[in-house]
Amino acid sequence: MRDFLPGDVRRRRFVIQTIASTYERYGFEPLETPAVENLETLLGKYGEEGNQLVFRILKRGAELQRALDKTAGDGADARPEFADLALRYDLTVPLARVVAEHRTLPKFFKRYQIQPVWRADRPARGRFREFYQCDVDVLGSTSPVVEAELCAAAADALIALGFATFSVRFNHRQLLTALLEVASVPAEKHGDALVALDKLGKITPDEVVADMETRGITRAAADASIGLFLTDFLVAGVPSPSNADVFAALRTRVGDHAAGQAALDNLAAIERLAAATPAAGRLRLDPSLARGLSYYTGAIMEIAVPDLAGSLGGGGRYDNLVGMFRGDQVPACGFSLGLERILVVMGERGMFPPDLEAAAADVMVLQWSETTQADALALAGELRATGPEGHVGPRVVLYPEVDKPGKQFKYAETIGVRVAALVGDDEAAAGTVTLKDLKNRAQVTVPRAQAQAEIRRLLGTPVR
Amino acid sequence: MRDFLPGDVRRRRFVIQTIASTYERYGFEPLETPAVENLETLLGKYGEEGNQLVFRILKRGAELQRALDKTAGDGADARPEFADLALRYDLTVPLARVVAEHRTLPKFFKRYQIQPVWRADRPARGRFREFYQCDVDVLGSTSPVVEAELCAAAADALIALGFATFSVRFNHRQLLTALLEVASVPAEKHGDALVALDKLGKITPDEVVADMETRGITRAAADASIGLFLTDFLVAGVPSPSNADVFAALRTRVGDHAAGQAALDNLAAIERLAAATPAAGRLRLDPSLARGLSYYTGAIMEIAVPDLAGSLGGGGRYDNLVGMFRGDQVPACGFSLGLERILVVMGERGMFPPDLEAAAADVMVLQWSETTQADALALAGELRATGPEGHVGPRVVLYPEVDKPGKQFKYAETIGVRVAALVGDDEAAAGTVTLKDLKNRAQVTVPRAQAQAEIRRLLGTPVR
Repeated sequence: MRDFLPGDVRRRRFVIQTIASTYERYGFEPLETPAVENLETLLGKYGEEGNQLVFRILKRGAELQRALDKTAGDGADARPEFADLALRYDLTVPLARVVAEHRTLPKFFKRYQIQPVWRADRPARGRFREFYQCDVDVLGSTSPVVEAELCAAAADALIALGFATFSVRFNHRQLLTALLEVASVPAEKHGDALVALDKLGKITPDEVVADMETRGITRAAADASIGLFLTDFLVAGVPSPSNADVFAALRTRVGDHAAGQAALDNLAAIERLAAATPAAGRLRLDPSLARGLSYYTGAIMEIAVPDLAGSLGGGGRYDNLVGMFRGDQVPACGFSLGLERILVVMGERGMFPPDLEAAAADVMVLQWSETTQADALALAGELRATGPEGHVGPRVVLYPEVDKPGKQFKYAETIGVRVAALVGDDEAAAGTVTLKDLKNRAQVTVPRAQAQAEIRRLLGTPVR
Repeated sequence: MRDFLPGDVRRRRFVIQTIASTYERYGFEPLETPAVENLETLLGKYGEEGNQLVFRILKRGAELQRALDKTAGDGADARPEFADLALRYDLTVPLARVVAEHRTLPKFFKRYQIQPVWRADRPARGRFREFYQCDVDVLGSTSPVVEAELCAAAADALIALGFATFSVRFNHRQLLTALLEVASVPAEKHGDALVALDKLGKITPDEVVADMETRGITRAAADASIGLFLTDFLVAGVPSPSNADVFAALRTRVGDHAAGQAALDNLAAIERLAAATPAAGRLRLDPSLARGLSYYTGAIMEIAVPDLAGSLGGGGRYDNLVGMFRGDQVPACGFSLGLERILVVMGERGMFPPDLEAAAADVMVLQWSETTQADALALAGELRATGPEGHVGPRVVLYPEVDKPGKQFKYAETIGVRVAALVGDDEAAAGTVTLKDLKNRAQVTVPRAQAQAEIRRLLGTPVR
């Protein structure tokens, strides 16, 4: 977990603001949930690996003592009873809990949520134990318009950040099931097959086949699966098969598998609808896309950027999750952008606007003597104030101590302010302020009432 | 811990933005730290009660197993060994850790930080186990200019939020020590005396005296303490003693206690300097102000609002805290505003701007038929787009399903949008859009290219 120093915070806020304002233009509303959830809310929602990665919070007081007493008596394997709370693992399960608990939400609840989540993972490059997700979800509708609009909103957010050449891989959980059935992978091995499949891109197809075999899937079924999932085999002889090519090949292979054909219908509808949005031309049908989380039930999506391993985000439909918290089902679909990955790529590719690196302040007020300290505070306040014509005053930092002027000027340069302002004895007597442009080294003494206007002029002047 | 639904988030963001932009105008820079700290970083910084209120995170994997094995062998009292991490308890200790770790920060590090903290407290009205603090701190200087500027910045933030009649109570830890010595409270009982004193305002002076006696302080010393701390007794016969009255009385009582006189000098300097800032006239010297946290070493401050029990925030000087994380000391002083208290008061007193209650979107695009779904998505995108003259497009939400128009119009009213937009068969044939003003019930059909401008006109028209 990391500290974010001022420059980091500015870059993070720029990305968060850009994403949030894009989502607000689509009518998504902000939601925030607590960092801490009941442990039982989270367990069983993310698969076994997810359960292991949830940070658990120790019980407190008498409840902890009871758990300790029990362990001392019963031996050392009562682990789950020591924790009752847990840190949020993603933003989707808390959303489902919120929708289940708050019955007054709109029928179609469109929310975005940009908050940290925590996973007790071994940290790696670009992976952290505390990281931010930028989620956008629609609850209450099974219409493919939802998937299309989520792809549009996520694409719009990335375009606003300056990404140009990304694509949205998409697939369907029911299509995956159909393909595994066509490949004669027995139903009880589907989970294993998807875990192996999810490694495509990190390991070779041959290694995936070998991995499937070690998981008890026959060589024939494993080979057949790969032949269906990988477009290289599925549409043989076509270097970069179009979505239409892949759809046609899948239609043939899925044959009379009704759920598989329905999944393809759904994907085709999503592609057609997305063509009317900023996601137009970006969707890439990819039957090898699996997505790790166990709660997906329909279409799944993932953002791919050229020359970047891994994705900037992904999502999918999860129609059964709200039902795990209340009696009736509420259909749902969402998209999550990973803030940390986006920041890394934008940093490496120089995509941040240059003025984000700005200094803490525009002006530094210097201190002249012990007796003029109050006047230095007053001057800082005057310069900061909204001007007579409604101009917003500059950001003004005050040097906190009386010190040699040379040392103070040097400090002003160190922290990157543009203008230093000083009222010495002469200026105090004359009712003036001396302003020094630290970039141009020019110095000017002006009546105090004109100091703010002069600073505005200096700040508007480009560095020679 | 609470969920924040869209209206809550908007109010919270309004307050956070107002405070943050005020602090930025003073040259404070943003810092963010992780929610999770090492447990040992937090323990021993907040006093014994604080230690108990820290949320601890269970160890994971082999380390947890070792702790469990040990408990099973040794009995049930090895509690601390089950946790290695903890949730942030305040923003001050993480700041001190950051300053100790990151040696490249400016000599005078002025930062603000607005993030949640967690305390395993019993929840009460307006008190939560997850709550936000809005902290502003200056590190690197012992000058009283720092205290004055922090009071100015906090006062400016509250003024910007619409608070008019607050005051800043201020006192000094060294003055408290001096007064307790003058009252003949033995040094080893000073902590107990301050705990009792901190209850003034919640219980009567007589009850505080009784509480001191149960803590082993003699009746005479307890009575003497109350006579020094409470301005009613300290400046007898003056209904609302001025700061000058209280200073004069304290100067006399403190007598030749050098540290006490130095503390009074410091407080006088702070008051004099603050008089040149937006905090002018708001400081109220109050020798009964104690502040709970154990890390304060100098001046302490707390915001009081008429007719409100408790405070909106407080702070003080803590010159020894950074030294607990690295060899050398770094002087420091800070001010923390409590977001939740501010929100409660602003809500009760109707201080939020009315447009904060705005709907999720300005416009809702309706769906006409299955065959026009893609066109509805396209229309939503056209309306959202930045206009030809650079106008920012309205926020446009799309009804996700084909449904009876009456039902869709009703939904648009429910979620509070102002304008509904529909392309039916006639409009599609004519290249037009029908717009309905849901407040005025007026309906107009315009060419599609003019729809955005017409919506801008409707949104700019006040409701009759």
